[in-house]
Amino acid sequence: MDCKKLYQDYTQHLQKIADVRYAIAVLQWDQETYMPQKGAGFRAQQVATLSQISHELFTRESFKNLLQDLLNCSGLDETEQKNVSLSWYDYTQQHKLPGDFVRQLSEATSRSFQAWVNAKTGNNFFLFEKDLGRLLELKKQEAGFLGYEGHPYNALLNQFERGCSVSLLDKVFSSLQAPLKELLNKIMACPQVNDGFLNRHFPKDRQWQFGMDLMKQLGFDFSAGRQDIAEHPFTTNFSSQDVRLTTRIDENDFSNMTWSCIHECGHGLYEQGLPASAYGLPLGEYTSLGIHESQSRLWENNVGRSLDCWDFFYPQAQQCFPDALNDIPVEQFYKGINKVQPSLIRTEADELTYHFHVQIRYELEKKLLEGGLQVKDIPAYWNEQYNKLLGVTVPGDKQGCLQDVHWSHGSFGYFPTYSLGSFYAAQFFAAAQKNIPNLAGAIRNGNYKPLLDWLRISVHAHGRRFTSEELCERISGEPLNIDYFIGYTTAKYKNIYGF
Amino acid sequence: MDCKKLYQDYTQHLQKIADVRYAIAVLQWDQETYMPQKGAGFRAQQVATLSQISHELFTRESFKNLLQDLLNCSGLDETEQKNVSLSWYDYTQQHKLPGDFVRQLSEATSRSFQAWVNAKTGNNFFLFEKDLGRLLELKKQEAGFLGYEGHPYNALLNQFERGCSVSLLDKVFSSLQAPLKELLNKIMACPQVNDGFLNRHFPKDRQWQFGMDLMKQLGFDFSAGRQDIAEHPFTTNFSSQDVRLTTRIDENDFSNMTWSCIHECGHGLYEQGLPASAYGLPLGEYTSLGIHESQSRLWENNVGRSLDCWDFFYPQAQQCFPDALNDIPVEQFYKGINKVQPSLIRTEADELTYHFHVQIRYELEKKLLEGGLQVKDIPAYWNEQYNKLLGVTVPGDKQGCLQDVHWSHGSFGYFPTYSLGSFYAAQFFAAAQKNIPNLAGAIRNGNYKPLLDWLRISVHAHGRRFTSEELCERISGEPLNIDYFIGYTTAKYKNIYGF
Repeated sequence: MDCKKLYQDYTQHLQKIADVRYAIAVLQWDQETYMPQKGAGFRAQQVATLSQISHELFTRESFKNLLQDLLNCSGLDETEQKNVSLSWYDYTQQHKLPGDFVRQLSEATSRSFQAWVNAKTGNNFFLFEKDLGRLLELKKQEAGFLGYEGHPYNALLNQFERGCSVSLLDKVFSSLQAPLKELLNKIMACPQVNDGFLNRHFPKDRQWQFGMDLMKQLGFDFSAGRQDIAEHPFTTNFSSQDVRLTTRIDENDFSNMTWSCIHECGHGLYEQGLPASAYGLPLGEYTSLGIHESQSRLWENNVGRSLDCWDFFYPQAQQCFPDALNDIPVEQFYKGINKVQPSLIRTEADELTYHFHVQIRYELEKKLLEGGLQVKDIPAYWNEQYNKLLGVTVPGDKQGCLQDVHWSHGSFGYFPTYSLGSFYAAQFFAAAQKNIPNLAGAIRNGNYKPLLDWLRISVHAHGRRFTSEELCERISGEPLNIDYFIGYTTAKYKNIYGF
Repeated sequence: MDCKKLYQDYTQHLQKIADVRYAIAVLQWDQETYMPQKGAGFRAQQVATLSQISHELFTRESFKNLLQDLLNCSGLDETEQKNVSLSWYDYTQQHKLPGDFVRQLSEATSRSFQAWVNAKTGNNFFLFEKDLGRLLELKKQEAGFLGYEGHPYNALLNQFERGCSVSLLDKVFSSLQAPLKELLNKIMACPQVNDGFLNRHFPKDRQWQFGMDLMKQLGFDFSAGRQDIAEHPFTTNFSSQDVRLTTRIDENDFSNMTWSCIHECGHGLYEQGLPASAYGLPLGEYTSLGIHESQSRLWENNVGRSLDCWDFFYPQAQQCFPDALNDIPVEQFYKGINKVQPSLIRTEADELTYHFHVQIRYELEKKLLEGGLQVKDIPAYWNEQYNKLLGVTVPGDKQGCLQDVHWSHGSFGYFPTYSLGSFYAAQFFAAAQKNIPNLAGAIRNGNYKPLLDWLRISVHAHGRRFTSEELCERISGEPLNIDYFIGYTTAKYKNIYGF
């Protein structure tokens, strides 16, 4: 066998599949940014056709044979072997899903997205119920096709975070409970910080410009990416050379746009840092969603809510929004942007109560998959849990169970990666502080090059070479350890609330 | 044979191909509106892969067999037979092009677009020369694959305007010469009208809003389409329910945006009027590029440069741009927007000299295909012809041979359809005037429903059911006749210039 030739065929075939997959991403990006309403029907069909083509290309017999030949090749170097073995894993996973099922799922998700938009606009879950029910049935089928040990949730979770499981997550969330509640109680016993100035008037155009300037300074390459407006901010990419961020702007809320920009920028920097030379190959792809989220959360919180960061950016903010910010000193600003307060919306939650939001969704999804909760009962369950864990009353579905886009995408088993991301972020940032001389000083000078360079080398450049756990061990010398997150938040809020 | 079942398979297969083709259109739309610079390389690859997939789906043996079975079916109704026979024609054309060639051509055009943008920005044809040369070689090959009688240009022209030929075009352009020159001489002998006010300051945001309002009033459905900014305005669509217009805005030029909006809106109204129920089928597609252009030119010129039209819209324009227009009466405005003056830029040319622009490109392309002109000699030839036919001196390639995007798309044999469109437009508008009671009155009241309804029924609804010539005969009772155009322009300019 000519291994080099086989590997070349393999590369070409995977690049072809990547071309189709990225075309789907363009169609979906357009769907959520610019597509007119009536375009939805045919767009769903177009995405479904491409999904089916991509699936068919990946699962066809000839590609399976090629992969098997490559697995038996002795002439491949380590990188080539790694790509092939990851592709073989992907193949075995994808192969379990029939082509017709992939098409059905794709059409159902496209339709559901429009239903979700309508339901959210109308503040009425029941406009989404039927589509969500159909999707849930398909996701149950999917779990069945993929197979799992223990809980069906594992099959879906595994698509986003390979190797993760319900038993591991249950452990993480339960060990988080006590320290999180303790910290929260301490904070709530202190006088609350004032963040009212964040809801003054911040003109739309200026917010847009401020966000763009911020991201440029953090290192996002706008010749290899752009930002647009979307209902629910997200990041996608069509290669590492074309990374699309989205944001939303509320004139009476400085936080909404600013930390969503920094968050998505963190995702974007990761995508731009993936090796372009490995386009379409596993080593050109991100490690896992947990690691992806570690990048967004690290920039959003560990960097973007630090005093060091705003020491430098705050004068720019004051210059941009003099009416709103000139009477607010940076220390007060810093406290305000770190206010802890149980609230309704996950994406606007503080760093602590955020994890209750995730936990509620996690438990809810498990129940849906087990059959212990019916789709029609979601709003009631949701509202009850928000009351119980966060002590807030949900005024309507829009601010309740319809707030997140994910289910309409068919993303069940996804939310826990948000919490994992925060925990990895704390652990990685501690490593960055240890490894980068005077990181705090660089950040205080608005110099993000040392941090970005370190992330490029430590995280981005590896693609899928290591699992999340392996990467975590390489970077920090130990497996995921939530003590980093507890330690980081305790120190921060101690300083802010003075308990 | 179960004809109904076969026809159903045929429909499904064509819809699948349409999904891929429209996905390509989304990628190309994004490429010309939003894509960041570095995205170009992988985007070219993505479009090429989809082109190859679409080509492969259309030319595969099983589809050929299906078509042949359907051609022998006796149980199809007239519409079904028409679709099948048009698909068979398309198949025989597409089948002539090898898959690898389609991919090469697609990659070459994507790359050429970026080269053209760079060359135009740099005002230097030689930055585009290499890519254009490569493209031209491919187009010559394409003509060879497709086959032709007489001139190789016929093979390319036929892709845009089935049944049209060099001999027909030569006749049209030569019969146009004398009356056009005579009319032009008469106009040039009169005192020139004043259009200086069109270059006053028209703020960007207001122009955008004015254009959008105009198109809404003409009948464009913004829930089934949208407008964005692009370097070179174009219209594309991803179904009849998702039609994308583009425009550009120059703050010191009211004409540039306004008539480009109306022009593209005319294209867009046509696409929105194609039957959605025939998605992916020949009868859901436009007749020919000449007919497409007849719709844009009819709205842009026969409607959009008429006094009836501006009787209604001009007060809106004055309200929107009081500083620029309040001292200009509507009669002066009308004369200004119809000023005849040989100039450099085709898309900004008046209705008469426009056809010299087209003729120059037509003759140039013929020479390139014959080998009588080398790519490197394009700028010199161009500048010489502009001097000879239009009496203008080309200051640089940007305003000369680089002004149009078409060659970078590989569109050779395309330009003549622009002139054909104007001639059809004059002929169709004369029929509309005859068939719609008090059309002028409706237009003076800003009521475009009667005209749009008539176009929907007379042109849009038919898709590809008739050829351009058949459609022309149905609508006007005779074949293409440039006397309509000559008559329309003579009457108009007589009134404006008073000769």
